[in-house]
Amino acid sequence: MRTQVAIIGSGPSGLLLGQLLTEAGIDNIILDRVRKDHILGRVRAGVLEEGTVRLLEKAQSATRLHAEGLPHDGFSLAFDGRDHRIDLAGLTGGKRVMVYGQTEVTRDLMARRESGNCLTIYEAANVRPRDFEAAPYVTYEKDGVTHRIDCDFVVGCDGFHGASRKSVPTKAIRCFEKIYPFGWLGLLADVAPVHHELIYANHRRGFALCSMRSMTRSRYYVQCSLDDKVENWSDDRFWEELRRRLPAHHAEVLLTAPSFEKSIAPLRSFVAEPMRFGHLFLVGDAAHIVPPTGAKGLNLAASDVHYLFLGLAEHYQDRSSAALDAYSPNALARVWKAVRFSWWMTTMLHRFPDTSDFEQKIHEAELDYLTHSRAASTALAENYVGLPF
Amino acid sequence: MRTQVAIIGSGPSGLLLGQLLTEAGIDNIILDRVRKDHILGRVRAGVLEEGTVRLLEKAQSATRLHAEGLPHDGFSLAFDGRDHRIDLAGLTGGKRVMVYGQTEVTRDLMARRESGNCLTIYEAANVRPRDFEAAPYVTYEKDGVTHRIDCDFVVGCDGFHGASRKSVPTKAIRCFEKIYPFGWLGLLADVAPVHHELIYANHRRGFALCSMRSMTRSRYYVQCSLDDKVENWSDDRFWEELRRRLPAHHAEVLLTAPSFEKSIAPLRSFVAEPMRFGHLFLVGDAAHIVPPTGAKGLNLAASDVHYLFLGLAEHYQDRSSAALDAYSPNALARVWKAVRFSWWMTTMLHRFPDTSDFEQKIHEAELDYLTHSRAASTALAENYVGLPF
Repeated sequence: MRTQVAIIGSGPSGLLLGQLLTEAGIDNIILDRVRKDHILGRVRAGVLEEGTVRLLEKAQSATRLHAEGLPHDGFSLAFDGRDHRIDLAGLTGGKRVMVYGQTEVTRDLMARRESGNCLTIYEAANVRPRDFEAAPYVTYEKDGVTHRIDCDFVVGCDGFHGASRKSVPTKAIRCFEKIYPFGWLGLLADVAPVHHELIYANHRRGFALCSMRSMTRSRYYVQCSLDDKVENWSDDRFWEELRRRLPAHHAEVLLTAPSFEKSIAPLRSFVAEPMRFGHLFLVGDAAHIVPPTGAKGLNLAASDVHYLFLGLAEHYQDRSSAALDAYSPNALARVWKAVRFSWWMTTMLHRFPDTSDFEQKIHEAELDYLTHSRAASTALAENYVGLPF
Repeated sequence: MRTQVAIIGSGPSGLLLGQLLTEAGIDNIILDRVRKDHILGRVRAGVLEEGTVRLLEKAQSATRLHAEGLPHDGFSLAFDGRDHRIDLAGLTGGKRVMVYGQTEVTRDLMARRESGNCLTIYEAANVRPRDFEAAPYVTYEKDGVTHRIDCDFVVGCDGFHGASRKSVPTKAIRCFEKIYPFGWLGLLADVAPVHHELIYANHRRGFALCSMRSMTRSRYYVQCSLDDKVENWSDDRFWEELRRRLPAHHAEVLLTAPSFEKSIAPLRSFVAEPMRFGHLFLVGDAAHIVPPTGAKGLNLAASDVHYLFLGLAEHYQDRSSAALDAYSPNALARVWKAVRFSWWMTTMLHRFPDTSDFEQKIHEAELDYLTHSRAASTALAENYVGLPF
């Protein structure tokens, strides 16, 4: 088999790149080691920057998003028992974010791909990028047979634990990492959200986030210890802890319902440099991870896709490699800004087990300054809605 | 002896408060443990916020400042071998800072005080605030005799090591502190500054600052180890190290001259809460210390003086204690914002011995973002020129 671009991973970044390529007439195959329904079973956040929405429109996959997504013009920072609203639209000249679950993004992209004549190979075991410094191809196993796809380029969209980054020689790659000393205990329930906008709460007992998937499905999180176990958290205990971390006027109106998903996720910042190795490109979580505070993960994958699509389109349409050569530095410049922002939001809003009294007061002074300075609020808002590509 | 306000410490904050009180017809006495020429021999920085300049005008002590001070509309952040100018005036609607040595501020305030009929007692040993929860007075020793000054209020302007804060029972005061793991090696020389604006340089080898007292007197600093000794630093070694940390176009035109002052200063953040104990008030360094990055020390003392003067004037003129009661919370709210700013500038611009590769990249991303975002540059600028009182 032969294709122009072999894409490893059928999550939102692989599907988005594949669709942009398809719309531009560039042949591509997507491979994934698991089944389609497994991919659609993943629970992920869903706050989309405008740039991400534009890309989904360009991929002809934004109809349902515009029908069902919830545009948000602001969010709340809650501390000292009060709400402090960040007026995203007012501070950024009308920009907003769109609340729409990542699973739904994936579903829309899959549907669009299936409506065309594009090949996606699910349950492809041991997918490996090969000889990507010279004459690239991908191997995989299916039904006991080893297959080979020759291609011009391989794109690794296979996440943090995927084979793509691991196929690069250790000495060719430099990794930067920070593990945070706490996790997020998340709960999904079919109940109206406590507030029509997101609430990021900084509380003596730890961080909490009130998010949503729709006006009838709520997603809530509380900061927890890394040693904690989901089994320790009955729904009742979760709701009680969440209430304690929210300002009273929210806690009093919080509606509850039985959870249908509850899990603990660790928080990590990770960046691998560079993002290109000959004819192999890394995209999204395969190259970098951010903590969920600020919802940058999917959006960062989308901006990688944007830069890479520009490069591939220029390569095939204009026979120029300039934009492809710029992929890694351009993508990384934006990645580091979002990594910085996610790290900063995480640091400011959580309680660290080893925070000194001085540092705690600094965080409080930062929240006080942030919510009283238009310049500082604008800096927060412009990062939250997404820095320009 | 009796006075309305007894001020301990004849540095710039004590003198400024004394002069504002005198101009408002409120009787005051200033006491200092050392001689006048000793106070004028202290070498300190001199970047004045507009609010500080306004207070010096109100104290009738700004004539020479306006004649000889250097208004600065911006400064440089130097990193990656390049200058990135922060346009203070352009970003803040025309605000600027005034470069004028703290020693000169002290000299002008002393001259103004001496032109009036105000008592300053130098070489007053063992100055102590007494009975400040009930019927306050101050005792001191001079020429072998113990003296007593009865008063309505005692104000401690006697610095970090002064007697005022130490006279407060330990359990009545809460201290927050951070010691930075490096120092600043500073050098004064009579030579034209390398640039007409200040340069804050972040370099692999450590932080450097090019500052000035006038267009013929330069003040330069390089980050050094806390274990280092001035004796290890010949002038030649200092100039060579400074050049290495500056962008080439500055290093090439750096003029040198023999130093006439060279010293190593540690960097510390410190805040004591509250700033009022009955009839005793703490002002400036007696209550808080900031690292010199961002030049907030004197300006913070001035804003304390502003809040305290408002309170004392209202007390004597309107027989109301509302503004005096608000002194500690109002002063501390501004103190913590400046402490945060100084901590942030220090953290971003220095190399910490224990900085991880991840944190180093975060600092670089922050500098990159800061110099490319108008909102982030504005947040920096509004803090640098001084948040409103």
